[in-house]
Amino acid sequence: MPLKTIAFDADDTLWHNEGLFREAESEFCQLLEDYMPQHSSVKELYRIELQNMSLYGYGIKGFMLSMIESAIEISARTVNVTDIEQILRIGKELLQKPVVLLDNVEPVLSSLHEKYRLVLVTKGDLLDQQRKLQQSGLEKYFHHIEIVSEKKEEDYQRVMGHLDLNPTEFAMIGNSLKSDILPVLNLGGHAFHIPYHITWEHEKVDRKIEHPQLIQLSQISELSQYL
Amino acid sequence: MPLKTIAFDADDTLWHNEGLFREAESEFCQLLEDYMPQHSSVKELYRIELQNMSLYGYGIKGFMLSMIESAIEISARTVNVTDIEQILRIGKELLQKPVVLLDNVEPVLSSLHEKYRLVLVTKGDLLDQQRKLQQSGLEKYFHHIEIVSEKKEEDYQRVMGHLDLNPTEFAMIGNSLKSDILPVLNLGGHAFHIPYHITWEHEKVDRKIEHPQLIQLSQISELSQYL
Repeated sequence: MPLKTIAFDADDTLWHNEGLFREAESEFCQLLEDYMPQHSSVKELYRIELQNMSLYGYGIKGFMLSMIESAIEISARTVNVTDIEQILRIGKELLQKPVVLLDNVEPVLSSLHEKYRLVLVTKGDLLDQQRKLQQSGLEKYFHHIEIVSEKKEEDYQRVMGHLDLNPTEFAMIGNSLKSDILPVLNLGGHAFHIPYHITWEHEKVDRKIEHPQLIQLSQISELSQYL
Repeated sequence: MPLKTIAFDADDTLWHNEGLFREAESEFCQLLEDYMPQHSSVKELYRIELQNMSLYGYGIKGFMLSMIESAIEISARTVNVTDIEQILRIGKELLQKPVVLLDNVEPVLSSLHEKYRLVLVTKGDLLDQQRKLQQSGLEKYFHHIEIVSEKKEEDYQRVMGHLDLNPTEFAMIGNSLKSDILPVLNLGGHAFHIPYHITWEHEKVDRKIEHPQLIQLSQISELSQYL
C-alpha cells in the first residue's frame, strides 16, 4: 500500500534537544564537584533517573526532581540550600531554552505536507513539548500532534488506530532506533533513521539494525530522494 | 442538534483527587511548622505554585518542585536535607496513591457508553493521568482520551474539531466551573456541573452561573434523568 502518513519525532529530529540536557547535566556535576568527581556524579544521576523513570516518565520536571535526589546522595546528605537553588535554576532555564531547528527542517516539512498527512509523535512533559512546538513555528504543517508517555509498539498501534491506518501506510522518521524505529518496523511500518550526533544512554541500541523497510539517512533533506 | 459526544473530566469527577493533594499539603505544612505556622506556609506554597504554573503546568511533579522551592523560602534558606527528602517522599507517595472511584461512576459510564460516544478530557501530568485511568478500570468505556495542558476555550475547540463535532452536539461533565463548564458553555456546548466537596483555590469561580445549557447536579447518578 502506498504511504499515506509520515510521522516525525521532535527532539533531535526537528529541533536540538539532547545537547541542552548534556549542558544542564554538566553544570549539575560541576556544582557537586566538591563531593564527587564529575564522571562519577553523572553515573549516579543516570542511576537515579532510571530508578524514577516509571514514576516520573520523560521530561524536564522529572529530570529536575532526579537531580535534587542525586545531589542528596552524591553529597552524602550534606548538600546545602544554595546547591538545591542552583538545581532549580538549571531546570527552569532548561524549560525556557529557545527552540533551535535542525538544518533544512522547515523546507522539508513544507514540501512533504502537500503530499502526505504529517503527524508529530513525541514524548516528554506535555506543556514543555507544546511550548517547543509553538515556538518552532512548525505546528501548521502537522495534521495531528501526539504527545505520548512512551514510544513502544502499543503506543504506535494506538496512534495508527486513531488515524485509521494500516502499518504499511505509515512511516516514522526519527533519531532514536529504540523509540522511533524498532517498534514501527516490528508493527510492519516503514522507518527512516536520521541519527543525531548525541544519543542519551537510555535510547542507545548496541546492535546494527538492517531491515527492508528501514532507510538510513544522514540528514533530513535526503528524505526528498524517497518521499 | 442531538447530543453525540459526552466528555468527562477525571479528577474529582470520576475519582477522588483534591483530597489527596490537601493531605499532602497538610503534611508539607506540618513538616515546616518550626519555621512558620501552617496557615501561613499553605499560602506561601500556593503563591509559589501560581508563580511556577506557566513553566510547570498542572500535576504532581510541578507540585513537588514548588514544595521544594517553598520550603527554601519558608525556612529562610535554612531548610535541612531531611525536609527535602520528606518532600520527595510525599510527592512519590502521591504518585502511587490507589485510585478510588466516586459513587456510581462505573454503572453510569457503562450505561451511557451504549448510547453516546464518551470522551475523557483531563489535565495534569501525562504519565500520572494514564496510570490513574488504567488503574480505574474505566478505559474501556472511552472512545477517546485527551490529556491536555489547559482547559480553555481553544483546548475544547481543538478536541471538538478533532472529533468532527459541532459544539451543540457536545456535553461536558465535570466539577470545575472554571475548567469544565464555562469554556464549553462559551463555545455553545452543553454542560453538567457536579461539584466536588473540595475545590482547589485555583479552580474557584466566585459568582453564580446560570445558563440555559447548564444543568447542576449533586451526583453523577442524576445524569440518567437527562441522558
